[in-house]
Amino acid sequence: MKLVRFGQPGSEKPGLIDSQGKIRDLSAHVDDFTGANLSPATLDKLRAIDPASLPEVPAGTRLGAPVAGTRNFIAIGLNYVDHAKETGQEIPAEPILFNKAPSCICGPNDDIMYPKNSEHMDWEVEIAFVIGSRARYVEEKDALAHIAGYCLCNDVSERSFQVKRAGQWVKGKSAETFGPLGPWLVTPDDIADVQNLALTLDVNGERKQTGNTSTMIFTIAQLLSYISQFMVLEPGDVVTTGTPPGVGSARKPREFLKAGDEVVLRIDGLGEQRAKIVPFKL
Amino acid sequence: MKLVRFGQPGSEKPGLIDSQGKIRDLSAHVDDFTGANLSPATLDKLRAIDPASLPEVPAGTRLGAPVAGTRNFIAIGLNYVDHAKETGQEIPAEPILFNKAPSCICGPNDDIMYPKNSEHMDWEVEIAFVIGSRARYVEEKDALAHIAGYCLCNDVSERSFQVKRAGQWVKGKSAETFGPLGPWLVTPDDIADVQNLALTLDVNGERKQTGNTSTMIFTIAQLLSYISQFMVLEPGDVVTTGTPPGVGSARKPREFLKAGDEVVLRIDGLGEQRAKIVPFKL
Repeated sequence: MKLVRFGQPGSEKPGLIDSQGKIRDLSAHVDDFTGANLSPATLDKLRAIDPASLPEVPAGTRLGAPVAGTRNFIAIGLNYVDHAKETGQEIPAEPILFNKAPSCICGPNDDIMYPKNSEHMDWEVEIAFVIGSRARYVEEKDALAHIAGYCLCNDVSERSFQVKRAGQWVKGKSAETFGPLGPWLVTPDDIADVQNLALTLDVNGERKQTGNTSTMIFTIAQLLSYISQFMVLEPGDVVTTGTPPGVGSARKPREFLKAGDEVVLRIDGLGEQRAKIVPFKL
Repeated sequence: MKLVRFGQPGSEKPGLIDSQGKIRDLSAHVDDFTGANLSPATLDKLRAIDPASLPEVPAGTRLGAPVAGTRNFIAIGLNYVDHAKETGQEIPAEPILFNKAPSCICGPNDDIMYPKNSEHMDWEVEIAFVIGSRARYVEEKDALAHIAGYCLCNDVSERSFQVKRAGQWVKGKSAETFGPLGPWLVTPDDIADVQNLALTLDVNGERKQTGNTSTMIFTIAQLLSYISQFMVLEPGDVVTTGTPPGVGSARKPREFLKAGDEVVLRIDGLGEQRAKIVPFKL
């Protein structure tokens, strides 16, 4: 299934994408895609519904992030062999975790806003996974069963805030609109091999990032198992798993996003994000 | 007001502490102390209720954390002059932020459990503030108006996970039960001067930490304003503001918590936490 949340910010309804690519309204069957409604049992119930029986939603309706009420938004640093090399850093011996504020989550095609006093806004195409059932000291072999689905994530970053403002990376990863998720939450049964998906990112029509989840240093199962040794992951939590090479700050010369730019992200089977960069507005 | 959440884990009800120190049940007036119910308007409504008109709750009833549904749990590193000195680190030029997973939040007197493979569990008495209204690019002069109340926090830490396991501090700050909050959420009108409160922490009856919020490097108003330049803070979010000197890892020789220890934390006007350290259990 491809699950979505459609409608205006703050009042999105749950839906799914049918085989013709139309949005169908699921709000008679589930109130929202909060963590509590991403359990295997609820997803099985939704899978049993004939999409043709659901009300059609007009094409062009805005999509929100496909998960609501996320509390813990974890990101992984330097998780692609080729990206670690381009940053000049060593391949990490164990996963590097950092946080994005959950308030940065937005829809896949929403404008991405420059924060106040920002000058080094960068892009990062990533595959994120969403927790469907509580994960606590999970073994690698059991890890994937805790995942409700996968979605595209742009781990938008402000490089000066991230590395020059003392301490931890969270400062450069958390501004409003820095966490576009979606368009879809794709359930695992709809993905043949999550460790063999192509990722791309274009800025103004020019290819900037090209990667494949096959070059991840730590697989998704390893990441989930690893994180669950340090904290309990709850349904609705999101983990974005690191970016392949081609980020702006590692290019020579360095490149950053500016107001008016259009950023397009794609991952095999997970759809496309298309967002405009806009200036800061109080 | 001193607000509490009482009852068994996961089914706490909202209440308040009356002038005799008794718990009174507020569940007929508010469903829970989630962020949505911590607005100035809701708190004013609760303030107008005569506590004597509320059902009394039996003494000894368990207390949970006094806030529910927290999404962003931010902590500040090295925010007391005397603590920065004891760790041998420089006084930070701007606040150091890191995250604790929201799933680590527990009640003030709940057992604190050793994580698996942990050997360096440490204590940190801190004053935390809870957001009552959305905070986005807030000026210092307006900052305190966004705070619903204050509570005691033990920023429990696993020092090996924090500094030896690659990357960011979140790994050592997020284990289950690593975020005891409470007993009370004390509204600002009940605190004469939040920048002049004594803090203490005892382990097995021996004083380990002694401090005062007057030696904070960055005041609470400065912290809230600062954080709001990097991310939007939402109602129910918690910021714990750093610890005074006397943590175990900075003592000579170093000291760590072990199963069976009792930790007691106190802050003027914010009450007391009394927790037992227990071994890991799957």
